Amino acid sequence: MIFSAKQVAEILNGTVDGSEEVSVETLAKIEEGTEGAITFFANPKYAPFVYTTQASVIIVSKEFKLEKPIKATLIRVDDPYSAFASLLNFYYSQKTARIGISEKASIHQGAKIGKDVYIGDFVVVEKGAVIGDRAKIYPQCYIGSDCKVGEDSTLFANVKVYEDCKIGSSCTIHSGVVIGCDGFGFAPQQDHQFKKIAQIGNVVIEDCVEIGANTTIDRATMGSTLIKRGVKLDNLIQVAHNVMIDENTAIAAQTGIAGSTKIGKNCLIGGQVGFVGHLKIGDSVQVAAQSGIMKDTESYETLFGSPAMQAREYKKSLVYQRNLDKYIKRIDELEKQLKALQK
Amino acid sequence: MIFSAKQVAEILNGTVDGSEEVSVETLAKIEEGTEGAITFFANPKYAPFVYTTQASVIIVSKEFKLEKPIKATLIRVDDPYSAFASLLNFYYSQKTARIGISEKASIHQGAKIGKDVYIGDFVVVEKGAVIGDRAKIYPQCYIGSDCKVGEDSTLFANVKVYEDCKIGSSCTIHSGVVIGCDGFGFAPQQDHQFKKIAQIGNVVIEDCVEIGANTTIDRATMGSTLIKRGVKLDNLIQVAHNVMIDENTAIAAQTGIAGSTKIGKNCLIGGQVGFVGHLKIGDSVQVAAQSGIMKDTESYETLFGSPAMQAREYKKSLVYQRNLDKYIKRIDELEKQLKALQK
Amino acid sequence: MIFSAKQVAEILNGTVDGSEEVSVETLAKIEEGTEGAITFFANPKYAPFVYTTQASVIIVSKEFKLEKPIKATLIRVDDPYSAFASLLNFYYSQKTARIGISEKASIHQGAKIGKDVYIGDFVVVEKGAVIGDRAKIYPQCYIGSDCKVGEDSTLFANVKVYEDCKIGSSCTIHSGVVIGCDGFGFAPQQDHQFKKIAQIGNVVIEDCVEIGANTTIDRATMGSTLIKRGVKLDNLIQVAHNVMIDENTAIAAQTGIAGSTKIGKNCLIGGQVGFVGHLKIGDSVQVAAQSGIMKDTESYETLFGSPAMQAREYKKSLVYQRNLDKYIKRIDELEKQLKALQK
Repeated sequence: MIFSAKQVAEILNGTVDGSEEVSVETLAKIEEGTEGAITFFANPKYAPFVYTTQASVIIVSKEFKLEKPIKATLIRVDDPYSAFASLLNFYYSQKTARIGISEKASIHQGAKIGKDVYIGDFVVVEKGAVIGDRAKIYPQCYIGSDCKVGEDSTLFANVKVYEDCKIGSSCTIHSGVVIGCDGFGFAPQQDHQFKKIAQIGNVVIEDCVEIGANTTIDRATMGSTLIKRGVKLDNLIQVAHNVMIDENTAIAAQTGIAGSTKIGKNCLIGGQVGFVGHLKIGDSVQVAAQSGIMKDTESYETLFGSPAMQAREYKKSLVYQRNLDKYIKRIDELEKQLKALQK
Repeated sequence: MIFSAKQVAEILNGTVDGSEEVSVETLAKIEEGTEGAITFFANPKYAPFVYTTQASVIIVSKEFKLEKPIKATLIRVDDPYSAFASLLNFYYSQKTARIGISEKASIHQGAKIGKDVYIGDFVVVEKGAVIGDRAKIYPQCYIGSDCKVGEDSTLFANVKVYEDCKIGSSCTIHSGVVIGCDGFGFAPQQDHQFKKIAQIGNVVIEDCVEIGANTTIDRATMGSTLIKRGVKLDNLIQVAHNVMIDENTAIAAQTGIAGSTKIGKNCLIGGQVGFVGHLKIGDSVQVAAQSGIMKDTESYETLFGSPAMQAREYKKSLVYQRNLDKYIKRIDELEKQLKALQK
Repeated sequence: MIFSAKQVAEILNGTVDGSEEVSVETLAKIEEGTEGAITFFANPKYAPFVYTTQASVIIVSKEFKLEKPIKATLIRVDDPYSAFASLLNFYYSQKTARIGISEKASIHQGAKIGKDVYIGDFVVVEKGAVIGDRAKIYPQCYIGSDCKVGEDSTLFANVKVYEDCKIGSSCTIHSGVVIGCDGFGFAPQQDHQFKKIAQIGNVVIEDCVEIGANTTIDRATMGSTLIKRGVKLDNLIQVAHNVMIDENTAIAAQTGIAGSTKIGKNCLIGGQVGFVGHLKIGDSVQVAAQSGIMKDTESYETLFGSPAMQAREYKKSLVYQRNLDKYIKRIDELEKQLKALQK
């Protein structure tokens, strides 16, 4: 996509200062700008880059005053950051705009396909599955029988959804995600063999959820593993059977949540965190990376460490541990002085 | 699948108490029962739910006495829990019953395909591969040349098996699992570059093994990476080259096992555990989640922490660390009193 | 592939001692040798195996003297280990030799395909993608629009590359790897909802990089996530947006690197390590498994623990912690003696 500075200014309702004809085809940070890129200047600490950037066009505020002449064209708007963010979104939506159903997809005649969808090559949609309007199913995805993919949701290449699972509207699911695989449920027998406990529940993902690449979400033993509206999961996360993650909680990569744990709303969970099973975690809880959560947690707590402690406790404990050598020297000294006194 | 209470009672060899015609189509826990669901009551602490559940049918023991009238139909059996478990297994086996070979699969004419198999769309089976009777290969799986998949094994959508790997009978392999990728073997050179060490071994998976979604199992450098009979691996586990996991060991999600480590029988390993390479772990060892195992371990030990300690040691150490502030106060006090004494 | 001892000796420029006609079809360690296998003897501590191995052929040094007669044929060369390593590489290259474009692949007519490539069944190559000469794209891979795969690179089954990403020459990418998925970037709103920040950068992978199964590499928000020449990544690693990993750094399985962190050259990073975002890690840094790196790190440091400490500090701290009971006993004793003195 190539636009002239004039065209971009019209989209942003801004004014051009410099060549109107210069063309841009990508977006960049001001310090990384190259010819053909459009960038923005908002934070005063980046002012020197206005004069050194190689970007062809810079979005600036209406009030901005140049201190010396520059090569780049300026586009003046009310709020440069939000103007740039709109351009980013526009660019991204153009990049991912797709429509049409591949003849190389395998769609069961008992599936129900909405309007204006995209279904790529080698996709499998099984019997009874429902694909909502404007959904985009990239190549090599697998949509099991009786699944639902809501309107305007995007599944990138190679997402696998086992039967009966439900994905809401406006979700984004990245490559390699597995939804609805069996929970890890086995009954130990006398002879040490494990007997599989059939996992017959499903996974329900509400609207506006984003799930990162290669994350796995197990189906419930019975009932549903539930990912509520607005949740954001990063890559390589494990969500076990019967877990519930409440609205607008964000979880960083490689975290694991064991079976039946419930996580509240608006939580921020770091990467590589582990939750044992059957916990109840409150709302707005924050958890530092690599923590191990082994107890129920009240709302608004901040947790660190494995096993996890509250922030204040943890920091104190860290200071103590880092100073152990000093305490030991004090014990040495006490013993010496006591001995002297005893003589 | 819709059944009447009467039909279910016949399957379970039970008697009906209430409407024989009421129909059920799913299974649920008693506290989550909905219309059309069948549930069970065994644990006395759930007794109140018998009177409040929305489930249409409840499996109860022959001796069970109602304290007040209820809407649900009862089916009376000898052992309600095991009757319900049989229903779960029946339901699950119906859900996953599949047979037939898709015309959209790509099967090399030099592959050997057993009887009554299911091979889904866009599966690739390479030359010399052997697929056992009644095996189910879901869509988009890749079975490399000279691989073997045993009788009655199921590979869900998108399992990838590199050449020469062997999978036993009655195994269940979930979506996104990779079997037989190269071990991480590189010889460092003088100039800091790494030279790849060719990985020419394979992976051997014995019978009755279950492997969770997106788990990876590296092929041996030479010889075999070996997963023995009855082992259960959860999702997102890493098994490195030349590892051996002995019979009926169960490992929770996101654990990693470095090269050449041998793990004994009947072990229970928590999630996010790490094993360094070349260890020998005994039988019936238990390891807590997030532990780091850096030493050989005798049979029957229980390990916690990173680096891991035996259970008793670990708990003592945890108490000491949580009480550090008290010890420091005692040192403060000793110094004060000693100073007073010295005056 | 079956070779006679004579043929192998010719390839290795060695001499045969024993039957020239004995045939070999695989390679093995000396202690695991079976009939039909060729092995080698270099390390004197393995000498007893020369007389007990079941291997058909043993590569030995020219100087090696037998102490008693053996069944196996010997091939005498200057350097047995390096001769065996060449055989390993030869065997591996034969195993993975492939050429030709499957009619079942879906290749956009606007893609550019090099000479002597292999493109397997159900591969998708989108518009504008460029596949270099002799590249091997195994079945079910997805190559997004405008991607590049360099000469002599191999993508095993089911690698997914989002649009615009660049992979260099002589790279090896294992099954289930996802390259170019969106970075985890969301702007929190007043009402606790997250607004997606469009991720419009890409991933650039230079030459001679190897990436293990199911590893995920996020595209940059803007600019590039950069994996430089000779980097080796193991399985199930997470590389976040705008990370840079410099030349010849090797990282073990399940490690995660948060956004914008830069890792230097020639580093050795253990498994299950976590790096927080926006760090700068020097060259030749070594990090122990399960460490948590939270601070910038100078070149040549060795780090342990979470939060990580320098090696010396960490070991000292571990000793202190393991001896806490002794320090506490000393405090007990001091209190007792002081009390005695005060009387």
